[in-house]
Amino acid sequence: MTYCLAIQLDKHLVFAADSRTSAGVDNVTVYSKMHRLPLGEDRLFVMLTAGNLATTQAVLSRIQRDLDNPHAEESLRTADYLFDAAHYIGRISRHVQAEHSEAFVEHQGNLEASFILGGQIRGRPHNIYLIYPQGNCITASPKAPFLQIGETKYGKPILDRVITPETSLGDAIRCALMSISSTMRSNISVGPPVEVAVYERDTFAVARHMILDYDSRLLLDMEDSWSQGLRRALSELPRFEWEEESGPREVQSR
Amino acid sequence: MTYCLAIQLDKHLVFAADSRTSAGVDNVTVYSKMHRLPLGEDRLFVMLTAGNLATTQAVLSRIQRDLDNPHAEESLRTADYLFDAAHYIGRISRHVQAEHSEAFVEHQGNLEASFILGGQIRGRPHNIYLIYPQGNCITASPKAPFLQIGETKYGKPILDRVITPETSLGDAIRCALMSISSTMRSNISVGPPVEVAVYERDTFAVARHMILDYDSRLLLDMEDSWSQGLRRALSELPRFEWEEESGPREVQSR
Repeated sequence: MTYCLAIQLDKHLVFAADSRTSAGVDNVTVYSKMHRLPLGEDRLFVMLTAGNLATTQAVLSRIQRDLDNPHAEESLRTADYLFDAAHYIGRISRHVQAEHSEAFVEHQGNLEASFILGGQIRGRPHNIYLIYPQGNCITASPKAPFLQIGETKYGKPILDRVITPETSLGDAIRCALMSISSTMRSNISVGPPVEVAVYERDTFAVARHMILDYDSRLLLDMEDSWSQGLRRALSELPRFEWEEESGPREVQSR
Repeated sequence: MTYCLAIQLDKHLVFAADSRTSAGVDNVTVYSKMHRLPLGEDRLFVMLTAGNLATTQAVLSRIQRDLDNPHAEESLRTADYLFDAAHYIGRISRHVQAEHSEAFVEHQGNLEASFILGGQIRGRPHNIYLIYPQGNCITASPKAPFLQIGETKYGKPILDRVITPETSLGDAIRCALMSISSTMRSNISVGPPVEVAVYERDTFAVARHMILDYDSRLLLDMEDSWSQGLRRALSELPRFEWEEESGPREVQSR
């Protein structure tokens, strides 16, 4: 599996992804699931991928082939809106899945893939889209300013409690990292390194890009501090009337 | 859906469950998913149920029918070990599902149900079992001292970080409540009231039983305190070197 998310802030987009791919338990490898596509001065895209690795790689190859072809009828360069680009990727994804579907019905495999596409086209707002395996897509909203693909449930509560369009960039990145870190701890199919990219509105370039591996000092420090903070939060919850102790005490971690 | 969990502590068992059941979005009702079965001086069981409501109700009815029948070949009263009782419930569950399976294949419904059975039989340790829809079962272990059924993923990270067999009873209950509360916030198919039961080793009676509805002062206070604690934990995470501010600041909630 995989866990990727994107957050739409007032002035920034934050993208974050794990890097573990697996086919069963004995074919586990590391692949980047984040693809940065700066396309000159008027557009920038970042893509996050989840699902069947052959499908996501084929989709990316076709996107690149269209970009390389100056006569391509349609490509990420011809899209007028991010919405058009998302639908273009959805169509490619459907096409790739259809090519192999017969063999996959036979072998009961799963060809499906999901994508998050974020970025900006000059003159339009910065934005993020989730592209479903069926090829259709949804965008974020001020009340739901983040999108997730892959193993999304473990890391959703912290996002639900914190993220708004006004969240500061640093807090949004830290929240994304703890969302992924909690998922890695609870589900072995999601693993490091964790990749983060930040886009700043109207710049048409990736502002920051970080790769945090399992031995990253920053990630380890954050993880320690987060565990400690959660234990403190738990120790400060109201007592039951039948409990002898009163006031905060230390909650041991496992 | 449903979310139920049980925690095995050194001297206690903690059971917790939400109460929402739904068939689609327009048939949402409240059913208790926690069933306390004190059976005299030598045994006590608590059952938690998830999955198809007709299946779980039929399983409970058959368990009761066997208990009411003094000539029953097998019942929760005849089990020598909690393990036997869990397998007995697994067989009943398979039987109930098999009765209706033909109709369900036709209508593409899902008859499956999962159960958590916990309690103690005199002379044996207190224990918890998860009974799968297939009728087989697993128990907890000191390294994995909790079991979950239903919508389990949202609430797993907090349990993973905190619960050990040595966790205090109060902390374990609070952790279970926050696990369910986070799930209710992120997934509309899980809802109040939240029901909690506590069993104390060698007592063969339910020590405490709480029903916390959506307007419960205790649950609301805990939820507020927890949100505040999480935001503080986030605000205390290490800064990135490129951030201007240093030291903890307020993280706004959504």
